[in-house]
Amino acid sequence: MARVEGALSEWVPADAPAGLGLAMRYAVLDGGKRLRPLLVLAASEAVIGHPQAAMRAACAVELIHAYSLVHDDMPCMDNDVLRRGKPTVHVKFGQAQALLAGDALQALAFELLAPEGNDIPASVQARLCRLLAQSAGHAGMAGGQAIDLASVGQVLTEAQLREMHRRKTGALLEASVMMGAACAQPSPLALAGLQAYGQALGLAFQVVDDILDVTSDSATLGKTPGKDAAQDKPTYVSLLGLARSRAFARELLDQALVALASTGLANTRALQALALMVVNRDN
Amino acid sequence: MARVEGALSEWVPADAPAGLGLAMRYAVLDGGKRLRPLLVLAASEAVIGHPQAAMRAACAVELIHAYSLVHDDMPCMDNDVLRRGKPTVHVKFGQAQALLAGDALQALAFELLAPEGNDIPASVQARLCRLLAQSAGHAGMAGGQAIDLASVGQVLTEAQLREMHRRKTGALLEASVMMGAACAQPSPLALAGLQAYGQALGLAFQVVDDILDVTSDSATLGKTPGKDAAQDKPTYVSLLGLARSRAFARELLDQALVALASTGLANTRALQALALMVVNRDN
Repeated sequence: MARVEGALSEWVPADAPAGLGLAMRYAVLDGGKRLRPLLVLAASEAVIGHPQAAMRAACAVELIHAYSLVHDDMPCMDNDVLRRGKPTVHVKFGQAQALLAGDALQALAFELLAPEGNDIPASVQARLCRLLAQSAGHAGMAGGQAIDLASVGQVLTEAQLREMHRRKTGALLEASVMMGAACAQPSPLALAGLQAYGQALGLAFQVVDDILDVTSDSATLGKTPGKDAAQDKPTYVSLLGLARSRAFARELLDQALVALASTGLANTRALQALALMVVNRDN
Repeated sequence: MARVEGALSEWVPADAPAGLGLAMRYAVLDGGKRLRPLLVLAASEAVIGHPQAAMRAACAVELIHAYSLVHDDMPCMDNDVLRRGKPTVHVKFGQAQALLAGDALQALAFELLAPEGNDIPASVQARLCRLLAQSAGHAGMAGGQAIDLASVGQVLTEAQLREMHRRKTGALLEASVMMGAACAQPSPLALAGLQAYGQALGLAFQVVDDILDVTSDSATLGKTPGKDAAQDKPTYVSLLGLARSRAFARELLDQALVALASTGLANTRALQALALMVVNRDN
């Protein structure tokens, strides 16, 4: 965690012009949980991946996450004023700067993955760019957000809700695991197990998010709770109820742990711990 | 040009969910000049580059350009309602969808550069990602836009204006040339000449833009003219006057052509023609 914070602070430039760097740093260096970077590093540890590639991938995926929060909080999207207990980027720096900071963070993510020099094999760089771009774009996170926009006030089936979350949050969480794995060349068996782990964990994350939105308070959560209901958004809690949502989260945790065991990898302790953290967190 | 249009139409997905694909295609398939893709292809032709890599790079750079226009037109930025003679993306699809479409286009640009399979060497993929990310991000286009935002109503020196434009529009035009060059491995001499060509052409493009903003009408220009003056933005025309701006554009054209001759490359005809087009265009 400390190494991730240090690397982010080193790589997100304070000297970007006209206040842009300040807005970028404010968006990123804000005490987030760093779940995605930790997943990258844990997966890379499990496959004995290239350590410098893993740290770059860890930070890149966090920059994509951070930019998505900046844009998602803007008035034309969720119009949220509080994020991790602080004013959101557009409240602090204005909408235009928030828009640009998000855009620049996305570009920086890819810049981190393709550094000059020969320290990281080009094949690893290219694979990391591919995984991140696919998970951030129309088939992943951005596509999920478009579905989310279109489904306010709609009644979704569980399959539709799952598809929305698979893209909106699941794709980047799964990509975090796969990017860690891409820092080495694991066996097809290990890769399939890691992917199944990432998929189960990604969905569990969203189910728990929906639960916390109705059970937590803003001090614990660091953002405004109850927003899903207020915005009439479909959630697992609105679809399944609280008790069945909790049972579903535990079931997904089991799936994730079984998938991990199927990889045949020796050192999956950190990945196990992260799955437990995702399901048992209170913010 | 026809091949670029065909490739863009193939690669920008109509089936992205919840209307996102429609907004992305509307933003891209709109009869733009395609200057950046043509620069990539012309530079690649001059160095005898990998043709598939060149076409992907050509489309990727155009997607970055297209996303920047979508975000730049939004109400919190330039608040423009007309672009290439049509309603802007947020007017047509709403601000939230415009924001997402821009974000998804940026991700798609990097996705195009790092395809599965072995058709394009990983070293070329990684170099293309690096060049595009650097030119689109805080040190390039996004940084230039931040300076632009901060300089409304300010009096800039010529050096400050040049620095703003070097980032805001110059970086991506220069990157277009360098990405074409990166589709092969040209000599250091050729690379330096191509870079100097790209820099001169990038600045010339902006000087001519400033001239057209005061001398053209919206039917010819395809966007609202006179906006710079209305928004009290510094321009070459406001700084140097019309006659000296025209002389400066011709001088930059000469610089670009001299740089091109210095490369020692045999086939630079297309690059020459594009430099002439940039300076002599009327929209």
